[in-house]
Amino acid sequence: MEVDIWQKIYQKNKEIATALSEKLREKEILCVNVLGSPGIGKTSCLIEIIKRLDFKSYVIEGDVEADFDTVKLQKLGINAVQIDTHGACHLDSPLIEIAVEELSPEKGILFIENIGNLICPAEFKIGEHIIVLIVSVTDGSDKPYKYPLAFQKADIIILNKCDLLPYVDFDFDFFSQGVRGNNKTAPIIKVSAKTGEGFEDIIKYLEKLC
Amino acid sequence: MEVDIWQKIYQKNKEIATALSEKLREKEILCVNVLGSPGIGKTSCLIEIIKRLDFKSYVIEGDVEADFDTVKLQKLGINAVQIDTHGACHLDSPLIEIAVEELSPEKGILFIENIGNLICPAEFKIGEHIIVLIVSVTDGSDKPYKYPLAFQKADIIILNKCDLLPYVDFDFDFFSQGVRGNNKTAPIIKVSAKTGEGFEDIIKYLEKLC
Repeated sequence: MEVDIWQKIYQKNKEIATALSEKLREKEILCVNVLGSPGIGKTSCLIEIIKRLDFKSYVIEGDVEADFDTVKLQKLGINAVQIDTHGACHLDSPLIEIAVEELSPEKGILFIENIGNLICPAEFKIGEHIIVLIVSVTDGSDKPYKYPLAFQKADIIILNKCDLLPYVDFDFDFFSQGVRGNNKTAPIIKVSAKTGEGFEDIIKYLEKLC
Repeated sequence: MEVDIWQKIYQKNKEIATALSEKLREKEILCVNVLGSPGIGKTSCLIEIIKRLDFKSYVIEGDVEADFDTVKLQKLGINAVQIDTHGACHLDSPLIEIAVEELSPEKGILFIENIGNLICPAEFKIGEHIIVLIVSVTDGSDKPYKYPLAFQKADIIILNKCDLLPYVDFDFDFFSQGVRGNNKTAPIIKVSAKTGEGFEDIIKYLEKLC
């Protein structure tokens, strides 16, 4: 019985996600699902990306609690709304449907910053056209081996906090080999949201899709 | 119907956890549930703790996939077993019951390294007597505000990677204020698993409980 209910929840979520994804595409809006652990720099990377983009950008900010990131984005003039899940570990498509209605995005890019969690959000489609996975050199090079699903589903992988490379033990070859074991094609792009380095390739990637 | 099933799952998990916790206490084994995000340094901190402890130590290593950490612990002569959840985002008490049987711990300390996830593991008791939460200065000072449950449930909070403090923006007062908004009593202990600094206070804390 439990399995039936889960299948129904997944199925319903997928149906709403597919419809939302189509609706956004019709409006010429690229929808980007941004995944990553807590504190990996999702919002900081989004700020660096959005300020370099020539397209109108929107952000749906997902958090368990608090709205620091939405306030930060809004202060920079970025059109952002907050979803607090009050305990839930991932966003789902019914939540995004409501947030999209509130945000009323026009032609451009809609970023959805998912809940800080490297496991559950990878299981739920939320209307996205692509998935951006953000990881950090401070978290070690074994993450693709330990959390394979997020790496399998990613269309592009951003390796953040590269300004800290001189001070941490990060084995890029081992990391890269782990990524390729899960995902043959996603580009891996090294950046530092602190120094602003490395974001040009992400901009090129996104602008090709718009 | 869905809610009923969840309540039953929580209830059953809690019953097994309570029985396990009592059984371990009878055997004079302190059971420690170790929570933290992916890559926060849970295994590295455990190694620093175990090598300083005067008590016999055991580790149950939880991961979504891979057994790097168990192999690392075993190479150091630490009695460790691996649980891979193959996708699941937290450990539960039936899994721990099986692992405890395999490990057959005697008087001492049993550490259970939970899945790298700052959300779901805080909801499931697994037979522990205390919860150790590990966070890192690289993840920013806003975590207690964004992920309150783990901070509410923690008996002791370890702030890791303090060797990187000169290179990151971490506001300890803001962090500490966020912790105290959720938890009035848990000590916050600053450490670096890389340099080995700060672990004495954790040892004192644990040895008092044994």
